[in-house]
Amino acid sequence: MSSFFGQHLHLSLFGQSHGEAIGITMDGFPAGMVIDMNRVQAEMQRRAPGHSSLTTPRKEPDTPEILSGVLNGRTTGQPICAIIRNTNTRSADYGTGVDLLRPGHADYTGHVRYFGFEDWRGGGHFSGRLTAPIVFAGALCSQWLESQGVNIVSHIQQLGHIRDESLLAAQTVDASALKQMVLPTLKPEIAKAMNQEILSAAQAQDSVGGVIECMITGLPAGLGAPFFDSVEGVLSHLLFAIPAVKGVEFGEGFGFATLKGSQANDPFSMQDGRVVTMANHSGGIQGGITNGMPVVFRCAVRATPSIGQVQETVSLCRGQQEKLSIHGRHDPCILPRAVPVVEAVAAIGMMELWKERQACIRS
Amino acid sequence: MSSFFGQHLHLSLFGQSHGEAIGITMDGFPAGMVIDMNRVQAEMQRRAPGHSSLTTPRKEPDTPEILSGVLNGRTTGQPICAIIRNTNTRSADYGTGVDLLRPGHADYTGHVRYFGFEDWRGGGHFSGRLTAPIVFAGALCSQWLESQGVNIVSHIQQLGHIRDESLLAAQTVDASALKQMVLPTLKPEIAKAMNQEILSAAQAQDSVGGVIECMITGLPAGLGAPFFDSVEGVLSHLLFAIPAVKGVEFGEGFGFATLKGSQANDPFSMQDGRVVTMANHSGGIQGGITNGMPVVFRCAVRATPSIGQVQETVSLCRGQQEKLSIHGRHDPCILPRAVPVVEAVAAIGMMELWKERQACIRS
Amino acid sequence: MSSFFGQHLHLSLFGQSHGEAIGITMDGFPAGMVIDMNRVQAEMQRRAPGHSSLTTPRKEPDTPEILSGVLNGRTTGQPICAIIRNTNTRSADYGTGVDLLRPGHADYTGHVRYFGFEDWRGGGHFSGRLTAPIVFAGALCSQWLESQGVNIVSHIQQLGHIRDESLLAAQTVDASALKQMVLPTLKPEIAKAMNQEILSAAQAQDSVGGVIECMITGLPAGLGAPFFDSVEGVLSHLLFAIPAVKGVEFGEGFGFATLKGSQANDPFSMQDGRVVTMANHSGGIQGGITNGMPVVFRCAVRATPSIGQVQETVSLCRGQQEKLSIHGRHDPCILPRAVPVVEAVAAIGMMELWKERQACIRS
Amino acid sequence: MSSFFGQHLHLSLFGQSHGEAIGITMDGFPAGMVIDMNRVQAEMQRRAPGHSSLTTPRKEPDTPEILSGVLNGRTTGQPICAIIRNTNTRSADYGTGVDLLRPGHADYTGHVRYFGFEDWRGGGHFSGRLTAPIVFAGALCSQWLESQGVNIVSHIQQLGHIRDESLLAAQTVDASALKQMVLPTLKPEIAKAMNQEILSAAQAQDSVGGVIECMITGLPAGLGAPFFDSVEGVLSHLLFAIPAVKGVEFGEGFGFATLKGSQANDPFSMQDGRVVTMANHSGGIQGGITNGMPVVFRCAVRATPSIGQVQETVSLCRGQQEKLSIHGRHDPCILPRAVPVVEAVAAIGMMELWKERQACIRS
Repeated sequence: MSSFFGQHLHLSLFGQSHGEAIGITMDGFPAGMVIDMNRVQAEMQRRAPGHSSLTTPRKEPDTPEILSGVLNGRTTGQPICAIIRNTNTRSADYGTGVDLLRPGHADYTGHVRYFGFEDWRGGGHFSGRLTAPIVFAGALCSQWLESQGVNIVSHIQQLGHIRDESLLAAQTVDASALKQMVLPTLKPEIAKAMNQEILSAAQAQDSVGGVIECMITGLPAGLGAPFFDSVEGVLSHLLFAIPAVKGVEFGEGFGFATLKGSQANDPFSMQDGRVVTMANHSGGIQGGITNGMPVVFRCAVRATPSIGQVQETVSLCRGQQEKLSIHGRHDPCILPRAVPVVEAVAAIGMMELWKERQACIRS
Repeated sequence: MSSFFGQHLHLSLFGQSHGEAIGITMDGFPAGMVIDMNRVQAEMQRRAPGHSSLTTPRKEPDTPEILSGVLNGRTTGQPICAIIRNTNTRSADYGTGVDLLRPGHADYTGHVRYFGFEDWRGGGHFSGRLTAPIVFAGALCSQWLESQGVNIVSHIQQLGHIRDESLLAAQTVDASALKQMVLPTLKPEIAKAMNQEILSAAQAQDSVGGVIECMITGLPAGLGAPFFDSVEGVLSHLLFAIPAVKGVEFGEGFGFATLKGSQANDPFSMQDGRVVTMANHSGGIQGGITNGMPVVFRCAVRATPSIGQVQETVSLCRGQQEKLSIHGRHDPCILPRAVPVVEAVAAIGMMELWKERQACIRS
Repeated sequence: MSSFFGQHLHLSLFGQSHGEAIGITMDGFPAGMVIDMNRVQAEMQRRAPGHSSLTTPRKEPDTPEILSGVLNGRTTGQPICAIIRNTNTRSADYGTGVDLLRPGHADYTGHVRYFGFEDWRGGGHFSGRLTAPIVFAGALCSQWLESQGVNIVSHIQQLGHIRDESLLAAQTVDASALKQMVLPTLKPEIAKAMNQEILSAAQAQDSVGGVIECMITGLPAGLGAPFFDSVEGVLSHLLFAIPAVKGVEFGEGFGFATLKGSQANDPFSMQDGRVVTMANHSGGIQGGITNGMPVVFRCAVRATPSIGQVQETVSLCRGQQEKLSIHGRHDPCILPRAVPVVEAVAAIGMMELWKERQACIRS
Repeated sequence: MSSFFGQHLHLSLFGQSHGEAIGITMDGFPAGMVIDMNRVQAEMQRRAPGHSSLTTPRKEPDTPEILSGVLNGRTTGQPICAIIRNTNTRSADYGTGVDLLRPGHADYTGHVRYFGFEDWRGGGHFSGRLTAPIVFAGALCSQWLESQGVNIVSHIQQLGHIRDESLLAAQTVDASALKQMVLPTLKPEIAKAMNQEILSAAQAQDSVGGVIECMITGLPAGLGAPFFDSVEGVLSHLLFAIPAVKGVEFGEGFGFATLKGSQANDPFSMQDGRVVTMANHSGGIQGGITNGMPVVFRCAVRATPSIGQVQETVSLCRGQQEKLSIHGRHDPCILPRAVPVVEAVAAIGMMELWKERQACIRS
């Protein structure tokens, strides 16, 4: 089932880009947490369109309305449902039915999957807009995790051919500064180059992809499990739910291919009576389980498929080859807005694993 | 839960490297399929140790005993349980309890997770040996998928710094030849170089990692779903269950970072009245759903953590720094034996999605 | 998790009696079904309060607003979310926090479960009002099942000491007449006696319980499974989700206790080339699987716990014994309004099993 | 999926009556528990056939072999798999394929469900023999629950027309005495009458049904949840997995039909600073959640369908009406052997709910 997730923290996602509303229900969230709605809203804004010259001018207030599960600003422990009304929906942009298949989009696969009954307008249920409720849910999880000393930070590690330093190598990370940046990078000059890269692509009626890197610190050892519910398995499952993510790697990831065992292993040592590793090539995970070091992962994000350039495609109605160029609202680069979504699913995944761990009983 | 998987095809995995037996139960498998046990056994042999100079000399017959779900050589549609007895278990190699933490292994994380009650012998439940029953289950799924025209093929695309051609670029692929090769590569000369690389690593008491690439052909369009049960989400969840896999990417994967939208999109065209794409950068998946083109993915596999070189580590018993060098049976490169495991989980994942699709009803 | 259900048809229920809104998300529903909203609304009205002298005067329009999953009156195959705003919420009736525990209600258990953070107002998330979205979801399932020839009908088989005939024994059943009756009974005179029973209880500031019997006809043989997903297991799981249901039985149910094997067995015979049973003691289910005969089950429904009579209870705030008499809006008998809820969960359960069946593949 | 159960404690059941072996895998069980195998074996013996004149003479040692998850007599926290070899399998009794459908059995429904590929021998996967591994799993859960002060006791509350006292009314219950009785009843003279009833039925080549009542004491308040994972929902789901169970009720159950609200409610009072109820009509559950009082439930168990008397049936091979009388090994009354199975699933269900509760976090 596409829109349900979780064994301990349950999510149910719904909505279409141009339907009445989009939303999410989350069950299993801890009771009694005071929600800081300003911070939730700040996360929503990081994802929202229309806030810089780099994103689509579609402006949505993207203010979640909480329908249930919260009383007097505190979570009740019961299902939390929040919805976001769709207001700025220019359906006229989208014709009366799917016809010209947009390359790189789910127009065709969605048409097959839903037997032609799908809501095709603006990507419908496939729209990146559905990540807004995910950010809402993730923001709550982040707040809870922070109360346990867990922090999640991420940056754009690569955009086109421009690369930022890796969090694996970084000495210090200013998490709150990164949260403020439109193009969060460890090195400020890299952000400028990336900005230029996006503007160039936009000018060429093209778009650009990249890599987002994320680090979760403050985790206890012992979260996750071998085999089917490894930290990697749970996080990757969630990360690939983000439209445009096409690769996920942990620690050295694909870089492990060129590392010998002697280079790839993380030797152990004792620090203040605690077992730690002297390097973190594994990204904080061994045997699918956290080892107490920072969890580090990266996602490959493909370039936005909506581009102004002329593309070859097919008309479903006429069953023949046609040309298509997409005009309307779209981002030349989705990475800036994808960063808070990556953080949100990271928070959701760790919350799921935290609860799973808490259910483990020692005799 | 670590050892259960699937919503439509259910798996339950159990066992430890040096326990009585390892095994798997699979429920939801189609009724009435004649099992070709020779081919199942051939897959088991591809994964088994001791069959070339490149792998550990531990010899296990690895012959699955089917306890249920099969009658007169046909599947009954009821749960299929198969076990493999552990015979060649030299427990004396492993001492009387976990003490020196092996870097890169799950000794420490498993110890925390299971409160010190884990079976530590030879990796216990974390052992790569647990992939044998997974290969068994995958072999059955492969046979069923083949009856539907679906084929799965893979090769070692990278080993250390040596790279084979990508299946995305390959003109023709001789699947049965690849299945026979100890080091399956598209270009035979690459296999020789990889063989040399492994032998060099072994000689240096070291190990080597790489990348396995896999292609699934013959899939109908419409398998998978957006968001939480995308093809990418389900396959990655399974692939990260394979010990040593630390990265998973689809189509161009991390290569998407440097592709512009105009390069990354797969234009559509009509072929024999059917919609196809003119390229396959997406790896056969759009919006989480198959588009009828080959599904192509790659996994990064880290070098075997067991190496003969001296490593820094910690003694849990004495709570202090120590040196460790691992002697005993281990592979200098796990990739040859990981290839059939990757194919097995690919088959399991596609079977799960096939059944999910079949449950979809159109009014 | 309390508010999620289903492996093939997924439900997510949310809301509190006096929160912003209550609602449900249903994923996995067939694409392309034209929804007959008049009939959905009619089902909602059967459950709604305020429509006869027998129910609470709380009047709620109970009109579901569909937020997603429906386009131009047809299901899209994507998650369907519907909400119902809470309008007539006289919170002042309920004080500023849970204090006097209402006997028979979840005031105490909810307080423990949610660590004191629960929404206590009017039962909060425990309220019978949450069955309204369940009826919405069930109404859609019913419409789809009807398109396959499946019909669900039920009646009040017992109310206090007054008993109606059993559907197992009935010659003919006028389903549409039953749907119109406030107190649906097979024998009209029984309804009158039941009406009198309810009025007497109301006058005595008391309430009355009973038994609802339900029959599902037109099912194919082969739905369900042995052991953990038997028809009985899935339906009972759903039926016990209805507040006030405390017993569920199939076919002869508890009557089996006094039947010998020779009386309890349903002999087989051939009818028009089809295998049928000559009796239906089993209620259409053998080995957890439908046999093609009508599925018949009954639920015991306890008397409404809210009564005007003085009851002994405890003040949580003062930690001492107190007296309580409940004045406000409540039904002297919940059975008339529970009937459509029972039908709704029956429809949901059969849809789940239908999809599970459809996923079964024969080689 | 029929043979998998649980969200927190996962079960996977497999095997057929006349296959190689039957077994179960349980994941999520607490690490570090010392298993008392004598007590496990004692539970297995209560269920095993051949131990009194009242049961089938099929003698199976029914000794579980633990394949995984236990090390040096302690649970490791990893999946526990146990199997029981089938030894005394007189397949010749069962012909070469299903033909004459045994009334009351799953011969026909299984044939439809599995497309004719089912193992029909001795009921195959539908056999009551599959409850042996369930008793094994339940025995482990019981031991863990006992370490937490939770005890499970049950008796035959009705057999034919003979009724024992209810546990709801009993002053004291001697749990260990009940465990020793072939026909466990609260009043010893009732056991004698029941014994006579069974012998009479056996002599008449018939069989007899009844009701098993079970009580779980020592539970904390707060286990379970409203709606889909109520205590009633989870337990009934498991109880209906027991072949022959056709009704499940909690507390007064169907007796609630004739109770007024004023009679049915359980008034609250304070006892030693703890909230308790002054009666236990609800069977220890309100709003789907335990209230700290004993959980009491009853299951209706139908008479064994295998009887020596001549029955009408159909030959699948010849497609025509035939006569059938079943000779071979079968119990004239399954209740004595069903008692430990009921206790086992009660333990499994409470363990699942205990773990679910433990995953709940309070901020």
